[in-house]
Amino acid sequence: MQIQIDEARLIGELKTLAGFTNVEPSTEGTAVTRVVFTEDDLRARAWLKQRAADAGFAIREDAVGNSFFRWTGLEPQLPAVGTGSHIDAIPHAGMYDGTVGVLGGLEAMRALKESGFQPRRSIELLLFTSEEPTRFGIGCLGSRLLSGTLAPEHADALTDSNDETLAHVRAAAGFSGTLATVPLPANFYHAWVELHIEQGPLLEREGLPLGIVTSIAAPAGYRFTITGFGGHAGALLMPDRKDALCAAAEMILSIERHALAANAAAGSIDTVATVGTCDVHPGAVNSVPSRVVLQLDIRDTDPNRRESVMQAVRRDYEELRQRRGVTIIEELVNADAPAQSSAQIINVLERACAEHGITPKKMVSRAYHDSLFMARVAPIAMLFIPCRNGVSHRPDEFSTDADIVRGTGVLAAALAHLASE
Amino acid sequence: MQIQIDEARLIGELKTLAGFTNVEPSTEGTAVTRVVFTEDDLRARAWLKQRAADAGFAIREDAVGNSFFRWTGLEPQLPAVGTGSHIDAIPHAGMYDGTVGVLGGLEAMRALKESGFQPRRSIELLLFTSEEPTRFGIGCLGSRLLSGTLAPEHADALTDSNDETLAHVRAAAGFSGTLATVPLPANFYHAWVELHIEQGPLLEREGLPLGIVTSIAAPAGYRFTITGFGGHAGALLMPDRKDALCAAAEMILSIERHALAANAAAGSIDTVATVGTCDVHPGAVNSVPSRVVLQLDIRDTDPNRRESVMQAVRRDYEELRQRRGVTIIEELVNADAPAQSSAQIINVLERACAEHGITPKKMVSRAYHDSLFMARVAPIAMLFIPCRNGVSHRPDEFSTDADIVRGTGVLAAALAHLASE
Repeated sequence: MQIQIDEARLIGELKTLAGFTNVEPSTEGTAVTRVVFTEDDLRARAWLKQRAADAGFAIREDAVGNSFFRWTGLEPQLPAVGTGSHIDAIPHAGMYDGTVGVLGGLEAMRALKESGFQPRRSIELLLFTSEEPTRFGIGCLGSRLLSGTLAPEHADALTDSNDETLAHVRAAAGFSGTLATVPLPANFYHAWVELHIEQGPLLEREGLPLGIVTSIAAPAGYRFTITGFGGHAGALLMPDRKDALCAAAEMILSIERHALAANAAAGSIDTVATVGTCDVHPGAVNSVPSRVVLQLDIRDTDPNRRESVMQAVRRDYEELRQRRGVTIIEELVNADAPAQSSAQIINVLERACAEHGITPKKMVSRAYHDSLFMARVAPIAMLFIPCRNGVSHRPDEFSTDADIVRGTGVLAAALAHLASE
Repeated sequence: MQIQIDEARLIGELKTLAGFTNVEPSTEGTAVTRVVFTEDDLRARAWLKQRAADAGFAIREDAVGNSFFRWTGLEPQLPAVGTGSHIDAIPHAGMYDGTVGVLGGLEAMRALKESGFQPRRSIELLLFTSEEPTRFGIGCLGSRLLSGTLAPEHADALTDSNDETLAHVRAAAGFSGTLATVPLPANFYHAWVELHIEQGPLLEREGLPLGIVTSIAAPAGYRFTITGFGGHAGALLMPDRKDALCAAAEMILSIERHALAANAAAGSIDTVATVGTCDVHPGAVNSVPSRVVLQLDIRDTDPNRRESVMQAVRRDYEELRQRRGVTIIEELVNADAPAQSSAQIINVLERACAEHGITPKKMVSRAYHDSLFMARVAPIAMLFIPCRNGVSHRPDEFSTDADIVRGTGVLAAALAHLASE
């Protein structure tokens, strides 16, 4: 069997998909903003469905908009082999995150079909809804629901910045019905493989073209509300201040310090902690900040180490609370367990690499992906391709055509092996 | 001469003026929003003109809407004695900031007139246009123009958030003609006194009913743009980061530290520094911040000390720039000189206090006022009355009727002395 990836078709489709955005062109690369259930997202979904229909795949969409494109196998009653990713993008992001897994998956299936391959098990491409937390504040919305990790009633009550509920927004986008129908039945997938850009610098740094993910680090999200005492920037004197932004600044540095210390103590690089937002109230140049809301994203391959970093941060902010006379409220947004890849799928991926003359790097995914949640209902693994300077979520996010095609070829081979099992 | 302040009239007028607003009622006090040249501002101005006309004062309005209400003296060719303040209010502010100086000034003049007093010099009430920076981004618009501090062509080109120019907005409000006619001629005022709420906690804390302002602190505004290197919150590892928000947090704390150190070194409380805004790009929970913009408001009675705080901050951020590998761009938004009160007017105010059996507190104004700019064209001083908890620019801003009446009585006595000189 000779599998031929159509490079022009795949790269052309990636460029077309990147055009479904309303962001200003960037001089630094291709800027993409595609928030779930916006007009751009819906146009992109319609275009993708047409591509899948043209390739002869059966289409199913669930109540939250997860979209399944199935190539029915010779034994359709067997658990299927799944692949896929997401097409939503945070504001001012790039064109490869998620999309390489969706369009690479589509191309792998088409290339297998065109090669004359007949799968024993069905092979299915899955487009997840809202991997990015931009709109509803929680990442991997679609895969959390598919895996039963998120309660349907809790999901429907999530609101966006306009205070519109997910229930309302998904209905307006054409996805209605109860979310209780979304969770996958047991043994739905025999195996799941997601192709993705690394979003880190390691493959490029080591000159390796492909990574096999052996585990996905456990992410957690926290929201901190720091409340002090506001007033006039001229008249509220320094000794009388309880400046919420100064307190927030100490917290930001405490979080960074303890994440670095955890890495130093473990001799690893597996703890990452990021304060990505800092909202200041009232947010006027001549007003002392009275309230600040910080959002923290903290990840680790070891959830115990992640928790001990949080404990150290808490000790710091207890002291801060006393010293600065501010109140600090901590809310847990999400805390997920890490995922381990299936040894059997790793073997299949290594075999596919060997067939392509590639030595892959076995590695940890520190970004989290829908595969983290798919791991709760199926054996999973992931394939990573290099991206320039490790940059992601920015317009200058970039992977070479050759790396994309190479990854897609290995994915196709792996899907063929897994669908034959 | 027995001067009788009409408490019912004055407090009644303050309440009436507070009704010219379109803000929702607040449970925390009286919420007022009155942005310059909105319908509420114009209704309030018309009402005030009627009050002044009823009292027999001559009305003049200049091209930017500064409004003059003159009680002509026995020797009308002499430089006049001026008093007044502003009636515009930032969104969701209170009912005393500015208005106490306008209606207190009006009441002082009426009470003098009703007592049978005949002023040698004319006494003039002045309503300034746009003391608050809300609409056009710059505070003290009217007094900057009166004092020749702001070029007329620059002022007319200022735009509001709807991109309407001041030239357009003032004409639509009925104030036309060239702004070149606004600056006051030399020696227009013999003396200028502004009555105002303290907007700080000191009078209340010390149990003193009245403050005499000896100087007004010099405000300066800076904008800092800190640029690091963004990326995915999971995949961009800690050792590879140039997190713009962590760098910004260090700057926020450096600014606070050096302002506190300047106070400690001087044994004073005259330096205040506030970072009031912190805008994070891209501002997503799962993205390492690549760029942060901070706005700093720093004030001091001594501009040299203000500058030495800035120098210390600059030394810190040079080191920060090296250590964190970020770029930091500093922009000066504005830097105004401080104002000193006239020793002669301070003496008159002390005498008026003594006549009322009041021991005043000599103090610095750390908020800035139209008097800061009036000081460039006239001898000035200010009278402060206490306000509860030092709160201002909020619905719970509050001064007692007794303090307002007491301040107005001292103002009336001082105007009488100054107008007799």
